[in-house]
Amino acid sequence: MNPLIACGRCTYCLTGRGNLCENRTMIGMTRPGAYAQYVTIPEHCLIDLPTGMDSAAAALTEPTATAWHAVNLAERTGWRPLAECDAMVIGGGAVGLLTALVLRSRGARTLELAETNALRRKTAEGQNILCFDPSRPPAEPAADVVFDCVGSVRTREMAIRAARPGAVVVHVGLQEAAGGVDVRKITLAELSFIGVYTYTTADLRAAVDALHRGTLGDLKWVEARPLKDGAEAFHELDAGRSAAAKIVLLPQ
Amino acid sequence: MNPLIACGRCTYCLTGRGNLCENRTMIGMTRPGAYAQYVTIPEHCLIDLPTGMDSAAAALTEPTATAWHAVNLAERTGWRPLAECDAMVIGGGAVGLLTALVLRSRGARTLELAETNALRRKTAEGQNILCFDPSRPPAEPAADVVFDCVGSVRTREMAIRAARPGAVVVHVGLQEAAGGVDVRKITLAELSFIGVYTYTTADLRAAVDALHRGTLGDLKWVEARPLKDGAEAFHELDAGRSAAAKIVLLPQ
Repeated sequence: MNPLIACGRCTYCLTGRGNLCENRTMIGMTRPGAYAQYVTIPEHCLIDLPTGMDSAAAALTEPTATAWHAVNLAERTGWRPLAECDAMVIGGGAVGLLTALVLRSRGARTLELAETNALRRKTAEGQNILCFDPSRPPAEPAADVVFDCVGSVRTREMAIRAARPGAVVVHVGLQEAAGGVDVRKITLAELSFIGVYTYTTADLRAAVDALHRGTLGDLKWVEARPLKDGAEAFHELDAGRSAAAKIVLLPQ
Repeated sequence: MNPLIACGRCTYCLTGRGNLCENRTMIGMTRPGAYAQYVTIPEHCLIDLPTGMDSAAAALTEPTATAWHAVNLAERTGWRPLAECDAMVIGGGAVGLLTALVLRSRGARTLELAETNALRRKTAEGQNILCFDPSRPPAEPAADVVFDCVGSVRTREMAIRAARPGAVVVHVGLQEAAGGVDVRKITLAELSFIGVYTYTTADLRAAVDALHRGTLGDLKWVEARPLKDGAEAFHELDAGRSAAAKIVLLPQ
């Protein structure tokens, strides 16, 4: 389902930007979250799953739609097609790794993922994504499109530094609210620094389709565990002890 | 002439972005400026002036091309045509006023100019541009496209605050290098914050044409003075004692 419930009538909804709907409500924010025993949702927010779709793949729909939406806006903003762009993704969590997989599926010319956690780098490398440790970032601006999937002062600094003249910097993460923005560089190098927020129902549908068709690879990096081990999984992720960018909890 | 001398061969030049040319040099930066007695310039940087074009209007080509380029990039980035956009320009100097005039000529739905100097507001109002004093800014985000033609911490804060969800914020000025960027708002409201740098030769040609055809109004706000009064004109502009957004110095 789309947890972001749009009105369908405002200018944003009518121009394909339901994620910015003026009258939106949200599961888990203004309505009870999905840990509640029952939730109600308007029918138009439901996303059909293909028959026989793997439930662990289906559980990736939300972060995949976030990545899908971010890449859509980057393509729309960029001057040249992704096939001519050197792409960089900062952050190898679920959204970062999925952004890299979406970029690859759309034929980005080159692709690099920056991640401090060696376990996560190994996970991404298992999907044949070229990774590097951002404590040793590239000396020269080397990217035509950069996705900051962390959103801290340091990652924004890195994203803007990595951007070639005319590049698109896509801000996806939300760790720190301000700082790290070199406006002089943005202006003189004519960068587009764009914020992206969630996804539309169209993005969610496309994400389900891409996951089910295998467009984003074998998804073997997703770890499945029994529901009862959920608390321990949260602890591991928080402590950086897990190689998994995403852990799916399955009811027994 | 285009003071920015592009190579014509790099990827930027070949994709219509000569202002970002990898091999560029610039009159007044890496080459002697136009106060020099003689300057040399490649033929391809010359812009033809229509026969009989007023020399004071022709002298506006450079700031007009800057405004023209900024509006071009805003239109390209925006989701809907300017005819559906409420536009705001911050700063009523030459580039700010020209940006407002370009926006009007392209049919922006509404248009407001923020300027602290009452003399400059009067100049812009003389061109039927709606002005306001930004010490009393609008309480609610009210613009779909905002041009910061000052580029200070305070004007950037104002530009981002004035932007509705999904809006384009165009950063033209260069007063302060960093600060005043609410990245959380840029992300959650899905803003596009774009830097713009100078202009291309195509923009300069279009600017000459628009000035000569009267597309940007009667240009009566441009003040002409004898060349010998140049020093005094600089002092007046610096002290905010001049109502003129642009003073053209004419040799006697």
